[in-house]
Amino acid sequence: MRTSQLLEQLMEALRCLPGVGPKSAQRMAFSLLQRNRQGGLQLADALQKAMTEIGHCRDCRTFTEEEVCSICSNPRRQENGQICVVESPADILAVEATGQFSGRYFVLMGHLSPLDGIGPSDIGLDVLEFRMQTETISEVILATNPTVEGEATAHYIAELCGEYQVEASRIAHGVPVGGELELVDGTTLSHSLAGRHKLI
Amino acid sequence: MRTSQLLEQLMEALRCLPGVGPKSAQRMAFSLLQRNRQGGLQLADALQKAMTEIGHCRDCRTFTEEEVCSICSNPRRQENGQICVVESPADILAVEATGQFSGRYFVLMGHLSPLDGIGPSDIGLDVLEFRMQTETISEVILATNPTVEGEATAHYIAELCGEYQVEASRIAHGVPVGGELELVDGTTLSHSLAGRHKLI
Ligand SMILES: [Zn+2]
Ligand SMILES: [Zn+2]
Repeated sequence: MRTSQLLEQLMEALRCLPGVGPKSAQRMAFSLLQRNRQGGLQLADALQKAMTEIGHCRDCRTFTEEEVCSICSNPRRQENGQICVVESPADILAVEATGQFSGRYFVLMGHLSPLDGIGPSDIGLDVLEFRMQTETISEVILATNPTVEGEATAHYIAELCGEYQVEASRIAHGVPVGGELELVDGTTLSHSLAGRHKLI
Repeated sequence: MRTSQLLEQLMEALRCLPGVGPKSAQRMAFSLLQRNRQGGLQLADALQKAMTEIGHCRDCRTFTEEEVCSICSNPRRQENGQICVVESPADILAVEATGQFSGRYFVLMGHLSPLDGIGPSDIGLDVLEFRMQTETISEVILATNPTVEGEATAHYIAELCGEYQVEASRIAHGVPVGGELELVDGTTLSHSLAGRHKLI
């Protein structure tokens, strides 16, 4: 027997968060009620605004509440001329964290998957094509995931770039820095060997 | 550089949840935006209602949006005559899950802690005293945590019961000493309830 309908609804609703099971949901609900109702209300407000107001950038398709996101509308980013193509908005954060890229992005929000009926226009390639026609793009860096689907998607986009005489490159696959060679899987090691470069 | 103010606010707000760091908050925010905005809105609604409408039961002090919770207002629970005293509302769920108890509860929302200035009235003992004066209580089962503070609180309440000729018992050790009641498995807690002994 439970003592509060609203508490049960809260515990149930918390389970929409990835990685949150019944036990974590209970701990979260009690923690907010006992120690941080203000935080709970702020979270409610942030969720409500984010879920209703955040859409996709007109140019790069990442999440933003503006028509064009702050990266796409940054003149220095535009001058750079490079576009890094990634599968998800989270990948932008990962690339930004390297501090090695100062161009703009294009977010596919997925990858090509013909068996699931996901074709070029479903991952926004019509938008990317329009940008290649209308903007001066020096290079398209294909940073899709190193999976079968990610590779196929990268190759499809590379051919599209070819049609518009835009340079396309693929990020290198290899042994992760700091890793141990004997722990790396065979496929990665094969890529790493094939992609070797001269030192001297 | 981030692309959305609202997304950043959401990631920050999610960190009010226990066990959620920057990386989990990011994963949660992207997951809701990409796959489950409806779930995110339901969570916002559940949080808003729970944080503003859930108060404490007049009789047992557990969380409820009613004046008196569904356990306290249940006639069969009242007839039972036993009151199980616990430190937190989560402990009620743990005891209920054993299926071994059909009385009512009293939630201290903490324990006595003189050094922190937490005295008897801060943990609702005036309310419990009033109930002992006005209700027919057959037994008070002290199920505070098996910690130094929990033991001290149990003994304090046992003496209070003595003043009103109300039988008091302490749940058996069997609950790991130093642990928290809500984390104990159901079998252990069942044994612990069955093996309770009279204090006065
Ligand atoms: Zn953009
Ligand atoms: Zn109650």
